[in-house]
Amino acid sequence: MKYAFGVDIGGTTVKIGLFEENSKIVDKWEIPTVTENSGVRIVPDVAESILAKMKECGISKEDVIGIGVGAPGAVDDDGVMTGGAVNLGWPVFNLREAMEKETGGIPVKAANDANVAAFGEMWQGGGVGCTDMVAVTLGTGVGGGIIAGGKILAGATGAGGEIGHIHLVDDEPDVCGCGNRGCLEQYASATGIVRLAKRRLAEDNEPSVLRDGEVSAKTVFDAVKAGDKLAKEVAERFGYYLGKGLAAIANVVNPEVIVIGGGVSKAGDILLSFIEPSFQKYVFPPCRHAKFKLAELGNDAGIIGAAGMIINK
Amino acid sequence: MKYAFGVDIGGTTVKIGLFEENSKIVDKWEIPTVTENSGVRIVPDVAESILAKMKECGISKEDVIGIGVGAPGAVDDDGVMTGGAVNLGWPVFNLREAMEKETGGIPVKAANDANVAAFGEMWQGGGVGCTDMVAVTLGTGVGGGIIAGGKILAGATGAGGEIGHIHLVDDEPDVCGCGNRGCLEQYASATGIVRLAKRRLAEDNEPSVLRDGEVSAKTVFDAVKAGDKLAKEVAERFGYYLGKGLAAIANVVNPEVIVIGGGVSKAGDILLSFIEPSFQKYVFPPCRHAKFKLAELGNDAGIIGAAGMIINK
Repeated sequence: MKYAFGVDIGGTTVKIGLFEENSKIVDKWEIPTVTENSGVRIVPDVAESILAKMKECGISKEDVIGIGVGAPGAVDDDGVMTGGAVNLGWPVFNLREAMEKETGGIPVKAANDANVAAFGEMWQGGGVGCTDMVAVTLGTGVGGGIIAGGKILAGATGAGGEIGHIHLVDDEPDVCGCGNRGCLEQYASATGIVRLAKRRLAEDNEPSVLRDGEVSAKTVFDAVKAGDKLAKEVAERFGYYLGKGLAAIANVVNPEVIVIGGGVSKAGDILLSFIEPSFQKYVFPPCRHAKFKLAELGNDAGIIGAAGMIINK
Repeated sequence: MKYAFGVDIGGTTVKIGLFEENSKIVDKWEIPTVTENSGVRIVPDVAESILAKMKECGISKEDVIGIGVGAPGAVDDDGVMTGGAVNLGWPVFNLREAMEKETGGIPVKAANDANVAAFGEMWQGGGVGCTDMVAVTLGTGVGGGIIAGGKILAGATGAGGEIGHIHLVDDEPDVCGCGNRGCLEQYASATGIVRLAKRRLAEDNEPSVLRDGEVSAKTVFDAVKAGDKLAKEVAERFGYYLGKGLAAIANVVNPEVIVIGGGVSKAGDILLSFIEPSFQKYVFPPCRHAKFKLAELGNDAGIIGAAGMIINK
């Protein structure tokens, strides 16, 4: 039996999975991410944890096909963190080479974490059977990953699929984290939905359960499900912007499926009903057939996609 | 010596080129496109012309690596015209298989003509040395092609890179050819520039050479070069929209270079000076480094790119 490891490096913990080459997950665990000293311990810690697991399971180096790694930053096809990784304290360096050195020569493939998660969804989740896919992650921000012809679209510097900052609205008064105004992320992220809700609440005195207690993406969609009219208007605005942004992306890459994940996607299928009308309105007809799906792998998308880059090349 | 053919099927003529496998062009010629009877003669005519050229030059089938074909419609990775080709009268069929059959088994690779031209510009034109490229063709309409990791991004149904219909403007009164309003093509094509110019001319009585004679993309940019203030405003609006559209595309695919071609690009480098400020304003910072270049291959981009798909796999 041959094995592969999938590694998902986050700002607080590193998730690691051990997979059989038939894609079955054998074990998964986490280690803390030590970001002190420019995150210099992270790669050695991951390598040590993998080598310890191999010893524990009696797996030799020859039995390991490779290690896939997802990291929170732009990673080019060669494995270079082209802009470092702010959340980890990392400078610009070749993550693939560093990990290969620390593990004593096991082959490594590295990519951006959102792209890796997208690859996981194609391999074993919402995009199974498709080779052309757009994955969008609606969390604190809006992330994304593009799979074209079955491969991660990394782009020139590893920033491919960074769709959260597509410009959508000209007269947006608030500034986005990137410094621009009117980015997709300002309307379609969890924080964007809260912003849209607060803006709507301030417009008039329309009654709504959202006027009691804290407003979050979850309370907005819970209220929608309970028939709250104002919450539905907020969801419509969210869906209008996200559908429009996804239409532009679909015109560029012509996906077979669009997979929606991240915390906001926990609202379920009702989410898609707000996105699709706007998508259909703005998409170029030959790209209209793209199916919408919810992500299926949750927090394991990262380790599954990382192992998939090794097993499902 | 081994050889490859590059074929560029247009609505009036089919351009064909014979290339040595070292990429040198040996001969190029044209045959008429016979669109009668659902374009049923086109593939046999092309095959016959290629076989005749082989005979003329003493080239055996074994000496031909393959035939690359670009066609005006969506072509998937397998060579299927997924939506037929309106300009040729073609229904849905497998162009690759048909051409292989008619040539007696020479390997064929088929792709959308704009994507093929983009591939040509990467191989021998404005994108030489790059593997991640956006090519945009500003002609009667706005076409495009995406090269990701050195490969054509065909998408699920071969409509990848169809960037002309990205929605940009919400309050556009005129309807685009696709049925939507506010598409990139309505501002950045040759006809779009004329529309922008006529709109600007109607706004007030600002003097301009454009008030005398016919307005075209060429007369607008000629007037810009002659210092015409109103023409410069028109060029600024054109550049604003195109830069914004290209910024959205760059956020998705993170290109190293953006190559601008088509009739409008004959205006020269001055064109880029109107596009880049808007691109820089709207692009996500990690994708900001993309270089702008003018296309270099002109009408030969199609045959060169088609042969390139065979020679430079």
